[in-house]
Amino acid sequence: MAMSSALLTDHYELTMLQAALDSGAAHHRAVFEVFARHLPLGRRYGVVAGTGRVLDALADFRFGEAELAFLRERRVVNDRTLDFLASYRFSGDVYGYREGECYFPGSPIMVVDGTFAEAVLLETLILSILNHDSAVASAASRMTHAAGDRPIIEMGSRRTHERAAVASARAAYLAGFSSTSNLMAGSVYGVPTAGTSAHAFTLLHGSEYDAFQAQIDSLGHDTTLLVDTYDVAKAVRTAVELAGPGLGAVRIDSGDLAVVAREVRKLLDGLGATKTRIVVTSDLDEYAIAALAAAPVDGYGVGTSVVTGSGAPTASMVYKLVAREDGEGVLRPVAKKSVGKPSRGGRKDAFRVVEDGVAAAELVTTAPGAPAPEGARPLLHTLVRGGEIVGREPLDAARERHRASVAELPVLAHQLSQGDPVIPTLFS
Amino acid sequence: MAMSSALLTDHYELTMLQAALDSGAAHHRAVFEVFARHLPLGRRYGVVAGTGRVLDALADFRFGEAELAFLRERRVVNDRTLDFLASYRFSGDVYGYREGECYFPGSPIMVVDGTFAEAVLLETLILSILNHDSAVASAASRMTHAAGDRPIIEMGSRRTHERAAVASARAAYLAGFSSTSNLMAGSVYGVPTAGTSAHAFTLLHGSEYDAFQAQIDSLGHDTTLLVDTYDVAKAVRTAVELAGPGLGAVRIDSGDLAVVAREVRKLLDGLGATKTRIVVTSDLDEYAIAALAAAPVDGYGVGTSVVTGSGAPTASMVYKLVAREDGEGVLRPVAKKSVGKPSRGGRKDAFRVVEDGVAAAELVTTAPGAPAPEGARPLLHTLVRGGEIVGREPLDAARERHRASVAELPVLAHQLSQGDPVIPTLFS
Repeated sequence: MAMSSALLTDHYELTMLQAALDSGAAHHRAVFEVFARHLPLGRRYGVVAGTGRVLDALADFRFGEAELAFLRERRVVNDRTLDFLASYRFSGDVYGYREGECYFPGSPIMVVDGTFAEAVLLETLILSILNHDSAVASAASRMTHAAGDRPIIEMGSRRTHERAAVASARAAYLAGFSSTSNLMAGSVYGVPTAGTSAHAFTLLHGSEYDAFQAQIDSLGHDTTLLVDTYDVAKAVRTAVELAGPGLGAVRIDSGDLAVVAREVRKLLDGLGATKTRIVVTSDLDEYAIAALAAAPVDGYGVGTSVVTGSGAPTASMVYKLVAREDGEGVLRPVAKKSVGKPSRGGRKDAFRVVEDGVAAAELVTTAPGAPAPEGARPLLHTLVRGGEIVGREPLDAARERHRASVAELPVLAHQLSQGDPVIPTLFS
Repeated sequence: MAMSSALLTDHYELTMLQAALDSGAAHHRAVFEVFARHLPLGRRYGVVAGTGRVLDALADFRFGEAELAFLRERRVVNDRTLDFLASYRFSGDVYGYREGECYFPGSPIMVVDGTFAEAVLLETLILSILNHDSAVASAASRMTHAAGDRPIIEMGSRRTHERAAVASARAAYLAGFSSTSNLMAGSVYGVPTAGTSAHAFTLLHGSEYDAFQAQIDSLGHDTTLLVDTYDVAKAVRTAVELAGPGLGAVRIDSGDLAVVAREVRKLLDGLGATKTRIVVTSDLDEYAIAALAAAPVDGYGVGTSVVTGSGAPTASMVYKLVAREDGEGVLRPVAKKSVGKPSRGGRKDAFRVVEDGVAAAELVTTAPGAPAPEGARPLLHTLVRGGEIVGREPLDAARERHRASVAELPVLAHQLSQGDPVIPTLFS
């Protein structure tokens, strides 16, 4: 049932393939590496996300009749190339950081080792997924930390492309959000879904009283009532009058949230609804969440800022050839010399150096397969071996890994101000 | 073959539906309106995009067995609601701005007129599509104007979610880009596709000479050679030596593009390759394009900035109930009073007031169906009538409409500095 992912690819990958098939270099072994030259916007760390989705997309990377017919009609490539694509199966190896792991500038987040022909085609698809999902997870992780023990619902679907919304919900959950409003993310990835109510529901009814009554009748006292359609204080009184002191929660979506939350808490407590929770929404980001730390808030709903990466909607990872087989069958490091965009040649390995339980450095070596240095955690794991996908894992494993990886960072990692990466990347 | 779009929906839309079915209000007529309270980031105008995709998604908005099973297992809604969803078909009307039309704060970009039950479910999907596609088209339009007669290739697929990439290519083309690197956009939407070559292709071969020879042999002299892998001047000489003065184009992807372009132009002309075009890429946005106006550049490739909306990755449109039927069957305007987020009640109509061929105002009225004021162009068109989709049109029609709509704006619209909307929105 899955749609082919094969055309989620840039035109030039196919024309390069054609030229390499014609020159004979296409079947030489080639190693590509995904890395970011820098973190976005003075961030202290990044979060790897999307790896699992890359593996799903790789399984669906097949040129079927429809894809081949398009390429033939548009004359994108010649017949020899179409023949190659018709039987395309990635048969190489992929290594990568596991999802949820933190990363830093130069971290070899994914390594694709195959023939040039097989590996060059995957550039766009791999980068699309990792750049998007990592941007969302990196923002979400900061918000999760700012929120402390308070849960955050991801509710940004309406602020991003409809399919990106599903991936965003997955990435935010991986980085510590408690749930999402997006039903597809619940269905496809098992992310818990949640929701409150909209102003439209209140406006639909003859009065706020009627609307609250209808919601409570249908959804029970544990529901979350939206109290800012008209007058907040009046709405809170109506809510407790109708639901009783066992009302689940109220949501505030406008105004000075810290001030309003304090007023609402006082009001709820005065009405005996001491267990009724207060959920706040309204263009929250990590800074706004941090600023509400002292306010009597029990949960946050975050939309736009998380799905757009809170100012950094893409992780700016690149996919670069770092080694290729020469005419004698020897794998040799390669690197371009473009001004301002140099790359480091050679197949890499990577380790997180940890001292006394605290991350101290990202160690990137060009001796793949060498044992981990003392006190260092290997970061590259086998995801695909000889074309077979072996790196799948439950989303909750990534969520738990992220929790542990972030907990290991120096405390400076959690400063929201702009700064340098919290640990250095050492190349050896 | 199309996948159901029905779960691209927020949890709360279904629970509101349940409560409204239980209260009896679900089948009251309701009018929802999509609008933006403001343009992003001091922009002078916005561009409507995504309308055609909304219509496609609406046709696929069906709750099939898989969707219902998920909702049942997760107990998202009760059985009565599941029964309603099983036979869900939108049977109302949708009006909207045509794709490519410019919009301003308060423009009623889409109006959904149906029962509350039918219309409330579409909130997230409609907003996801319009917010994403309009953000991309709004940025692309500025770039197109900055580029003047020079073509721009959209090549940002790797910097955004893999499916958002396809929609981005469509939106950028609609707003004047000449082509895209994204093959799926070529296949699904007929956008012309194009590409050059990557550094990996050069690095794969034993030398730049061998790489260029391979590319020319396979793709012909009209190909675009990437000349900044090692030394630009040397690469240009090699390129012309191998392809002859009829070489199609060279691409520069690094360095000070204006300076390098001048050097390359001089070099090409000296070698007799006076018709060889120069294409530049490397984190270009509308400002960088404008700054290259005087440089000898023949085309641009734009990636990150266009797919991320050049600083405004979402158009911040909202979907608000503006009118609903009361107990006596009368349609009444409604509006919330939330602090800082007021809405204007009542079903709207909209016109572009044009004086001497120049747009003068956006006129928004609450008298739908009244004739257009003199010199005003009606902006709301019927897209869906009684559930039947009637508003489909070829993408090129939207592209042509955009060209005309932008051409009609006051020249101030094209200032890249931040400012107010270029025409006022008048409510009457």
